[in-house]
Amino acid sequence: MALPDFVTIVEVGPRDGLQNEPTRVPVDTKVALIDSLADAGLRVIEAGAFVSPKWVPQMADTDAVLARIKRPAGVRFPVLVPNEKGMAAAEAAEGVHEIAVFGAASEAFSKKNINCSVAESLERFRPVVARAREHGWRVRGYVSCVLGCPYQGAVTPEAVAAVARDLHAMGCDEISLGDTIGVGTPLAARRMIEAVAAHVPVERLAAHFHDTYGQALANLLAVLELGVPTVDTSVAGLGGCPYAKGASGNVATEDVIFMLDGMGIHTGVSLQRVAEAGRAISESLGREPTSRVAQALRSAAA
Amino acid sequence: MALPDFVTIVEVGPRDGLQNEPTRVPVDTKVALIDSLADAGLRVIEAGAFVSPKWVPQMADTDAVLARIKRPAGVRFPVLVPNEKGMAAAEAAEGVHEIAVFGAASEAFSKKNINCSVAESLERFRPVVARAREHGWRVRGYVSCVLGCPYQGAVTPEAVAAVARDLHAMGCDEISLGDTIGVGTPLAARRMIEAVAAHVPVERLAAHFHDTYGQALANLLAVLELGVPTVDTSVAGLGGCPYAKGASGNVATEDVIFMLDGMGIHTGVSLQRVAEAGRAISESLGREPTSRVAQALRSAAA
Repeated sequence: MALPDFVTIVEVGPRDGLQNEPTRVPVDTKVALIDSLADAGLRVIEAGAFVSPKWVPQMADTDAVLARIKRPAGVRFPVLVPNEKGMAAAEAAEGVHEIAVFGAASEAFSKKNINCSVAESLERFRPVVARAREHGWRVRGYVSCVLGCPYQGAVTPEAVAAVARDLHAMGCDEISLGDTIGVGTPLAARRMIEAVAAHVPVERLAAHFHDTYGQALANLLAVLELGVPTVDTSVAGLGGCPYAKGASGNVATEDVIFMLDGMGIHTGVSLQRVAEAGRAISESLGREPTSRVAQALRSAAA
Repeated sequence: MALPDFVTIVEVGPRDGLQNEPTRVPVDTKVALIDSLADAGLRVIEAGAFVSPKWVPQMADTDAVLARIKRPAGVRFPVLVPNEKGMAAAEAAEGVHEIAVFGAASEAFSKKNINCSVAESLERFRPVVARAREHGWRVRGYVSCVLGCPYQGAVTPEAVAAVARDLHAMGCDEISLGDTIGVGTPLAARRMIEAVAAHVPVERLAAHFHDTYGQALANLLAVLELGVPTVDTSVAGLGGCPYAKGASGNVATEDVIFMLDGMGIHTGVSLQRVAEAGRAISESLGREPTSRVAQALRSAAA
């Protein structure tokens, strides 16, 4: 099992992290967050979503955010686009060159979350992905509930592999595999990746693991050893777990960078600077970072 | 790399966890905690310490605790004994059949923590261990700072291996390797275990990892794959980090059990019952468990 020399971090805090915030986060705050993350060395930062403002009001100002962020050379700013209406908004916005579509490996989750079957969701994504490719845009395909579902419980590796295969076949450049409720453990994570990698080259896979049960870093270690080259993280652990209020959600960028730094795996991200970005947004939101590293660094400094 | 089928959990919450509590924890509370941990299936529970009440007042009632706990068949209750005075107290107490001595792999830490060099500490332990063995008692040897020291920084695997070898040679049955400040990462943890295992059989080693930087489960996964059969944990994450106030310390029993359960590795411990024990002691202490699993279970139930 060979660990990669370099891991690409996809920072999802400004979108996946902030989207469930109950209080509107000002555009200025979002722009400052995204700029500080780019300054910290992150090269892929999910900047927003073109989704229904009725369902996700927090993302309604994505066009304003995209118009104001700095755009350092080499930094990508994907946005979530779930359907053709979102695609039209992305096309009208400034500087979109990469999008993400959002599917599930669980029928029950798909029905509850986007009100259609998994197969229907894939048909909905197909013209979006095709159009993105006409523009020469890069496309990420998210698969949620890859290690368990809050509604149906167990999800088989084969179900994950089938959705990942279809998303890849329709033109997604990268498949991000999400343990949406954080119930995965290392061997289950490995089995899931092995099943997906039978259909999609492992270098096209990203691990999007939640830390709800504290398992995210162990699961990441397990799948990095299989050659997964990309990890989704959220600065300060922004986002929490929408299925267990008060619990942790996305694994914190700081915690992942600490582990990778310690293992000699390069990311290009400065731990100190990303921790500063996390402290700043956490202060804006009036809360503590859920990142263990952020908490330890602050305690050590005090 | 073969994972074990069974991992022995050494529950250190009642000693290592409680010893730094600023407010005296009543004997009743300690006894209830220990009894509930045994009921949850834990088979090794560190029950107290015979140390100076001046330095560690929280452990001054260890003899009263030992006199009152239930003693289910097959459950061991080691106590910390740092010197001959402590050994005399252990001999006078009820039902001591196992002790632990406490050394360091860091000269700076040894000086600050127990006011002598590493070599002097080993000479101090020698008669204690010899006497325990005369009684037919089991002896654990702790080594702290195995992946870093709060005072001197780096600690080499060779320094850890030397202390572990000496403790094993003087008669310690098991060597518990402590990442006291939680700065270790998986490859460093593996290198450390490999260095120690060149001198002490790996089946005599225990991993005592702190979760200060969120790395404990990943580090445990890394060393379980080397055959380490025993893991020290603290229910609810009791103890915090004395070197970074407000940060996490000992890895939480619940988080470790969740990972091992998910991997099909047996421990004999009931996650639900140990989480209940953790909630009860956390309520007694007026705080939240630092265990991510405890937080998620409570949020999911709410």
